[in-house]
Amino acid sequence: MKGRTMRNFRVSLKKVVDDSYDIEVGYELTTRLIDDIKEGLAGKLKRFAVITDSIVEELYARPIYEALLEEGYKADIFVFPEGEKSKTRETKAMIEDAMLEKEYRRDCCIIAVGGGVVTDLAGFIAGTFGRGVPFINYATTLLAAADASVGGKTAVDTPRATNLIGLFNQPLKVYIDIAAWQTLPKRQIVSGLAETIKHACMADAEFFDYLDRHMEEIINLDPAPCEHVAEKNCQIKYEVVMKDEKEAGLREILNLGHTVGRAIETLSDYKLLHGEAVSIGLVAAASLSVHFGLLKERDMERVVALLEKAGLPTEIPDYIDREALVKKLYTDKKVRDGKLRFVLMDGIGSVREFTPGVFAKEVEEETAREIIMGM
Amino acid sequence: MKGRTMRNFRVSLKKVVDDSYDIEVGYELTTRLIDDIKEGLAGKLKRFAVITDSIVEELYARPIYEALLEEGYKADIFVFPEGEKSKTRETKAMIEDAMLEKEYRRDCCIIAVGGGVVTDLAGFIAGTFGRGVPFINYATTLLAAADASVGGKTAVDTPRATNLIGLFNQPLKVYIDIAAWQTLPKRQIVSGLAETIKHACMADAEFFDYLDRHMEEIINLDPAPCEHVAEKNCQIKYEVVMKDEKEAGLREILNLGHTVGRAIETLSDYKLLHGEAVSIGLVAAASLSVHFGLLKERDMERVVALLEKAGLPTEIPDYIDREALVKKLYTDKKVRDGKLRFVLMDGIGSVREFTPGVFAKEVEEETAREIIMGM
Repeated sequence: MKGRTMRNFRVSLKKVVDDSYDIEVGYELTTRLIDDIKEGLAGKLKRFAVITDSIVEELYARPIYEALLEEGYKADIFVFPEGEKSKTRETKAMIEDAMLEKEYRRDCCIIAVGGGVVTDLAGFIAGTFGRGVPFINYATTLLAAADASVGGKTAVDTPRATNLIGLFNQPLKVYIDIAAWQTLPKRQIVSGLAETIKHACMADAEFFDYLDRHMEEIINLDPAPCEHVAEKNCQIKYEVVMKDEKEAGLREILNLGHTVGRAIETLSDYKLLHGEAVSIGLVAAASLSVHFGLLKERDMERVVALLEKAGLPTEIPDYIDREALVKKLYTDKKVRDGKLRFVLMDGIGSVREFTPGVFAKEVEEETAREIIMGM
Repeated sequence: MKGRTMRNFRVSLKKVVDDSYDIEVGYELTTRLIDDIKEGLAGKLKRFAVITDSIVEELYARPIYEALLEEGYKADIFVFPEGEKSKTRETKAMIEDAMLEKEYRRDCCIIAVGGGVVTDLAGFIAGTFGRGVPFINYATTLLAAADASVGGKTAVDTPRATNLIGLFNQPLKVYIDIAAWQTLPKRQIVSGLAETIKHACMADAEFFDYLDRHMEEIINLDPAPCEHVAEKNCQIKYEVVMKDEKEAGLREILNLGHTVGRAIETLSDYKLLHGEAVSIGLVAAASLSVHFGLLKERDMERVVALLEKAGLPTEIPDYIDREALVKKLYTDKKVRDGKLRFVLMDGIGSVREFTPGVFAKEVEEETAREIIMGM
């Protein structure tokens, strides 16, 4: 009876999915969050797992936790040690076990309170806990505002690659609390600006000029420019992600600077913050763009100057082994058929579309090596 | 500036998603699988990760792997030790690391070859590897045919609960290879029949009678009744899952027998196979149904008789601590607000809908304890 097929039937699962959500930017949004929950943001759910890190816990997570209890909800705080090093499968398992221990099941909602590491990790936990529970992002850093509020990307790092284990998961709502930026160490604020500069480089020459003119005020956390930055960050990313729904591939441009950036971040053993590594990666991408005649030398210098004005590193630290870095590039998600691929600038404020829907260029290992050796 | 909101904008993510796929039931379907891939089942993907367990590896996974290589595709086999004990976050991480080590990235397709443990685990890995890669299920057991081919449930177990960490993930296609059943140990075949009997109990009195009349032939793996069983299994589950798209909640009926079943499975430290534990759970659910006047004593005896005819256990083993079992019930996914909830039979071939869309009944711990103490 070999090869005989007795039956072949189709499981039809076509449906309309609506993952839309609001992003709210403002000052001290705890009250807004609690009001939204009272008004049904999380449906009928009455139990909230507040996930946060050891730095944000006291400042922002505890007030939210206490406000929830005050309103009669059940809540617990789950804390992990701050830093990119915590963004692992092990931390995910630790929090899952702690939630299970406290008898959390599918009838709960997760609230992520913190920066990009917290929102990435908590969003991933929400995606697989009980095969998916809703979650809310309360972003307390510029980096989270830039990187974690639009796009639905969640992930953990593994010893062999960053962000390769995770899923797409959309929050119920995102709160971007600008007041929280004032509590960040200066180094964190500066690190967060790398994604902002990336957004300007890839999509908005005018915004690039704005950053150039207002960098000092932004670093001082003057309200008006911070509002503009938070707004522009979400807007640029949103446009990319939305267009990507139609033109698959566009989303890849968000990887500008990330090919070398992520590899350096891992090789530095997270001594470099994500934004610092991305800053160096942006310089590498700009250099490659110059190499391929897509960016003027002068414009590359402007990119480097803006990163430096923000206080970001633009050179590969001496302790990074260059050959190990070249090898590490192959762990990048854009690699196809074993070939390195880079998103490249096409002048300031634009990236090159190489063929329709393809925004990454295959780059020979030797070319990538040259650029890296020269940094 | 406390409480002042500067901007609130909406991320619109409404879209049509089509996760439809085919299920093919037949004999020796390796050639069909390879032909489908050549005809574009996995799009342009050229790299396949064949995930399997130590029992299925030689019999089914290796022929598929070799056929892929023969056709010019890249492929690797990733093997984990057979058994429910392997369905863990640790095994998931081990396979992910092995895939990363071999430089698998997002441009790959996973082929799960095996029983329910393999399809559950590989489907979960596919859902989070590179934030999601496509996967194909090649089911080699009756249990996988019954439990893992329709519904998209994937998961791992944790020390505190079974199947609570996972996600919904639909395969590109499911192959149900009846020839493979002949290679299974008799105990595995019998275990797989528990889900089949569950399907009959909850949805199809005629099928219940059919099983009663043909159980011996089925256990002997006579082709005609096996075909009928494979077909009915998918059909009943498909109808439930499809209807659930409209009436959220109906899907819960698939949990008939699983409240006590899963708890026993965990407490037995997996000495009991999933189906064996479900069989005992079905008796518990039937007893509860009798307790609430929903099932005649005589019909409950028919359920027990059919399970026994199949060779399945119908009593809680002596080594299971009854009080620990009662406590373990609270790890069930159906628990709401700390209350136990059970799906109950409403005569043979039907379950009770308690209120519109609600198919699980809150049961007092004392009532559950009584039933358990009596088994």
